[in-house]
Amino acid sequence: MATSVNPPRGMRDFLPAEKARREHALGVIRSVYSAHGFDEIETPVVEDFERLHSGLGGDNEKLAFSVLKRGLDATALAHAADSGDQSGLTDLGLRFDLTVPLARFYATHRAELPPVFRSIQIAPVWRAERPQKGRYRQFVQCDIDIIGEAGPLAEVELITATAAALRTLGLSGTRVRINDRRVLLGLLESFGFAAGEHAQVLITIDKLDKIGAEGVVAELGERSSSTDAVQAFGAYLTARVGEGVDDTIHPFGLESIQREVPAGVAPEALQSLADIGAAVQQADPAAVLVFDPFLVRGMGYYTGTIFEIEHPDFGYSLGGGGRYDGMIGRFLGQDVPAAGFSIGFERIVDLIEADASGAADQVVLVHDADAQPAQLALLKTELVAAGKRVRLERRTKNLKATLDRVEAAGFGAFAFVGRETSSADQLEFKPLG
Amino acid sequence: MATSVNPPRGMRDFLPAEKARREHALGVIRSVYSAHGFDEIETPVVEDFERLHSGLGGDNEKLAFSVLKRGLDATALAHAADSGDQSGLTDLGLRFDLTVPLARFYATHRAELPPVFRSIQIAPVWRAERPQKGRYRQFVQCDIDIIGEAGPLAEVELITATAAALRTLGLSGTRVRINDRRVLLGLLESFGFAAGEHAQVLITIDKLDKIGAEGVVAELGERSSSTDAVQAFGAYLTARVGEGVDDTIHPFGLESIQREVPAGVAPEALQSLADIGAAVQQADPAAVLVFDPFLVRGMGYYTGTIFEIEHPDFGYSLGGGGRYDGMIGRFLGQDVPAAGFSIGFERIVDLIEADASGAADQVVLVHDADAQPAQLALLKTELVAAGKRVRLERRTKNLKATLDRVEAAGFGAFAFVGRETSSADQLEFKPLG
Repeated sequence: MATSVNPPRGMRDFLPAEKARREHALGVIRSVYSAHGFDEIETPVVEDFERLHSGLGGDNEKLAFSVLKRGLDATALAHAADSGDQSGLTDLGLRFDLTVPLARFYATHRAELPPVFRSIQIAPVWRAERPQKGRYRQFVQCDIDIIGEAGPLAEVELITATAAALRTLGLSGTRVRINDRRVLLGLLESFGFAAGEHAQVLITIDKLDKIGAEGVVAELGERSSSTDAVQAFGAYLTARVGEGVDDTIHPFGLESIQREVPAGVAPEALQSLADIGAAVQQADPAAVLVFDPFLVRGMGYYTGTIFEIEHPDFGYSLGGGGRYDGMIGRFLGQDVPAAGFSIGFERIVDLIEADASGAADQVVLVHDADAQPAQLALLKTELVAAGKRVRLERRTKNLKATLDRVEAAGFGAFAFVGRETSSADQLEFKPLG
Repeated sequence: MATSVNPPRGMRDFLPAEKARREHALGVIRSVYSAHGFDEIETPVVEDFERLHSGLGGDNEKLAFSVLKRGLDATALAHAADSGDQSGLTDLGLRFDLTVPLARFYATHRAELPPVFRSIQIAPVWRAERPQKGRYRQFVQCDIDIIGEAGPLAEVELITATAAALRTLGLSGTRVRINDRRVLLGLLESFGFAAGEHAQVLITIDKLDKIGAEGVVAELGERSSSTDAVQAFGAYLTARVGEGVDDTIHPFGLESIQREVPAGVAPEALQSLADIGAAVQQADPAAVLVFDPFLVRGMGYYTGTIFEIEHPDFGYSLGGGGRYDGMIGRFLGQDVPAAGFSIGFERIVDLIEADASGAADQVVLVHDADAQPAQLALLKTELVAAGKRVRLERRTKNLKATLDRVEAAGFGAFAFVGRETSSADQLEFKPLG
């Protein structure tokens, strides 16, 4: 028998209060996304190994947990031991994101789905991360995706739905930082970076939050051979970041966006951003958009708009997404336009208040140890039928401890069950607390 | 790139209609169990390998999927290849039930839980079953358990809550077959089976549904050395099964139960069954209990009451459970009374009607391809704010196909968005269908 009784390393149990808080938040997100016309789907938690390792998952592929193949024979084991290639030991793996499964799902079921498919996926994913504060090996992602819509309407629906979901959760003050991959590439081109360096330069720019403008310029200086480009871009970056980003919040129009980048950079992408911004702000005047020409987002599969949700009180993004037209169709062998938005659920769930509503309808019946099951069951049934949530509690010497505990658990009232109590009408409820 | 795009063998995707139906059913179950005072918890989908293989899972342990250990070295592989012992290749496994994780959870968190803990677990489990109709490698279990209550109140709460959940799902006509392990053992003793044979005899009796009384008697004759016992028990079994079970449904009282077994068998267990039955029927006059002295239930860990939910229209049980006082405390190293009830969710979800309510509040906006995102987003937001679920649909040549599709998806009305439509008030909704 094991001596430790903890959950596996880097993973968590959820006790009732935390589970209730999580389910409440997930219910709000689910219901807002559904109102916005999205449909929830579900895929198995495992996918075929080769699909998980097809290159769509970027660095996350390395963090995938693999499932040991059943009925593994000694030959396969000897081969793995000799060659160091362990891929023959496994045929399945736990998903590390919800995007690879969505691409597989879409390839499987395309014929049964509408031409524009708006999906909700709310589900756990697994990554063998080094456990640390706020990083878990099993965590929930909330993704919405629109597949089959090539125009900016997709981004508008994704952003308005997500802004509404966060607001309904009680998270006010969030802002959407937005950019377009084509703007980034246009910038690099206009400053004269060699095309072969673009990917590496973007990786460096992506570190802006962590190492600052100075750090970015220094790293570019070390790694890029386009010396003039580094200098010119460095001057632009330093000036731009020094201004702060708040200048560009309102109005989010084409002209204000154009002012942020050198003339002639990615005109189509700037127009697309302006269209998205205008539509979002018309539909939702409370939505705050910030154009950030240095927003990169890590995943290589983005092809157009990219965005992140941020809150001024927190130094990390609460979610993000973008357009990734090349990816969803990969398993299908054809290009399909797609865009998605993923809420970082583990980050936001700690920011929202527990749902304290309904305490009055949660009642406790305190009974003696020799109370009859038939009596208790009848009283409970009557109260449940009347819309109450009912908890039975045996009376102990320390009544106060019991009442404190059930109050903390969200119950709002209690009553003693007497020997003669034969109907819920006879119970005298007192408020807890 | 893989050529097949199916989900992994034996596992399923859920498209929107099926996912909605499942979530609706799970929501009903969750809400009824919560009203009955149970608290939902969650554990990680994986547990430590040694814990999954500690003997609590019975035959299901053999069906567990194991997770390949990360950073596996050639020595471990060579050892596994040489010795045939693969346990060094894995340190985690996917759970095959929710009971082993509950025992581990209780050991981890006992100090934070109330003295009587009523848990809800609604979550998937994984078994490497041979895929066949109605058997899946990932499926959902809905378990409630009461830990820390030694008396029949636990069984009464479990049975009344589950009966209420199934009724709220619209499943009427279910019955609870009930027995007690002590009755079974008392029967075997009274007929003279040797104590060492009891476990094997129970395995044979457990096949009654499949091989009939004649089959059971034949198998006992082959395997048991207690010849007289087989003959006497066979006569009793044949007579008893021939009568049919319906006789004993009502009234479910001590006397009617006593008539079903030879005098003197397990008097305490019979009294306990009578108490449970009386309480259940007083609290829920619609509940139908059937005493079945041949109900065994497979798992070896049951110690007292056992029960199954059946429906006369279906030849399989819809769920079951019982008392298993020895098990929950195993990881804690002490005995803790416990009883549980598990709904076979995959079996019942196909029996219940889809939730057709709310179609009127689900509306579709049909728009031309050149409609402005800003216009559509605004109309959508207005309707969502008015409590509607809104789906945008681009107009195609085959309007009827679009309308048929959204009607099938549960939407109740549609309107055309004109070039001049600037507010939801101007939309003219027509019913679908």
